[in-house]
Amino acid sequence: MLASEPYSLILSGATGIYPYKIKVERRLSDLREYFSNRRIVEEVLSRGEDPLIYTVYEVPRGAGGELDVGCTIIYPGKIGKEYYFTKGHFHAKDSTSEIYIGMRGVGKILMQDRRGRTRVLEIEPNVLVYIPPGFAHRSINTGDTELVFLAIYPSDAGHDYDTIRRTGFAKIVIEEDGKPILVDNPNYAVP
Amino acid sequence: MLASEPYSLILSGATGIYPYKIKVERRLSDLREYFSNRRIVEEVLSRGEDPLIYTVYEVPRGAGGELDVGCTIIYPGKIGKEYYFTKGHFHAKDSTSEIYIGMRGVGKILMQDRRGRTRVLEIEPNVLVYIPPGFAHRSINTGDTELVFLAIYPSDAGHDYDTIRRTGFAKIVIEEDGKPILVDNPNYAVP
Repeated sequence: MLASEPYSLILSGATGIYPYKIKVERRLSDLREYFSNRRIVEEVLSRGEDPLIYTVYEVPRGAGGELDVGCTIIYPGKIGKEYYFTKGHFHAKDSTSEIYIGMRGVGKILMQDRRGRTRVLEIEPNVLVYIPPGFAHRSINTGDTELVFLAIYPSDAGHDYDTIRRTGFAKIVIEEDGKPILVDNPNYAVP
Repeated sequence: MLASEPYSLILSGATGIYPYKIKVERRLSDLREYFSNRRIVEEVLSRGEDPLIYTVYEVPRGAGGELDVGCTIIYPGKIGKEYYFTKGHFHAKDSTSEIYIGMRGVGKILMQDRRGRTRVLEIEPNVLVYIPPGFAHRSINTGDTELVFLAIYPSDAGHDYDTIRRTGFAKIVIEEDGKPILVDNPNYAVP
């Protein structure tokens, strides 16, 4: 193992983290299978539009015992009544957890364990959210501005995106009377 | 293993984190063997004074794969020319790392590996510092106000305080002409 060196980086509510190693952009076409109203998704895409839903900046490390740092910016917006969100995933290594720290904007962290138990916590600046082992997690921007948050997780956590892509989350967050509410996901496929 | 539940907590530059599980106060008498000018330490203590050097608030989890959260407040002050600091420690599990995030005030993170290699990074609000596996770490308040920072580390990291208690760090941070500088520690016992 290559010895790892200390580093520091700047946290900015405006632009995320700097410097970073990896930048990933997720557009509507990448999230085609995730939003509950698939008709609207296809309508938007068929007009030649492919809005940017979120961007992730990462500083990965690699070895077990180390910690990766990421920063996610979810843009404000909705597909139908459903707020923009991240795909959401379980960790491939089920014993690993994750910590989020809100930097700008407001949103919700939707968590779900492999038995389908759902938990929701609010995220906003100066709030830290702990995602325990075994909980898939999705972030949802319920505000009018960008939702920016820091993520810290064990470098060997890994990503299992496939389970959520197949089943969805049991709950979704939609706007009703101008406010975010949690409702059952009509497309949820009980695992 | 008891299943761990999601939680959130409030980060405050003024008071640290809330809620927390454990609060630890470290006074000069707890740091008697750590400051380089032991004569001044004994003088202060013999006057019946025992100033509070730092306070740590913790939310421990316990299991491997989980992450502990801590928040340290180092008060402003010096013993002789040497700024107030934390004891500093290696992790008992050498493969584990740690992340600090500055919340208020300014200071330095002094790191040293088991071969005596020293690294120093600045900490201040909106700066994240990564402490790689194998580096002992001490935080030093070089400002006129409290230094407050968040710490995130694997729950199974453990603490080896004994090595640093015996050898000290190779470098210390003192005030010279009103500014913090890094100098050799006259009491350093090469391991």
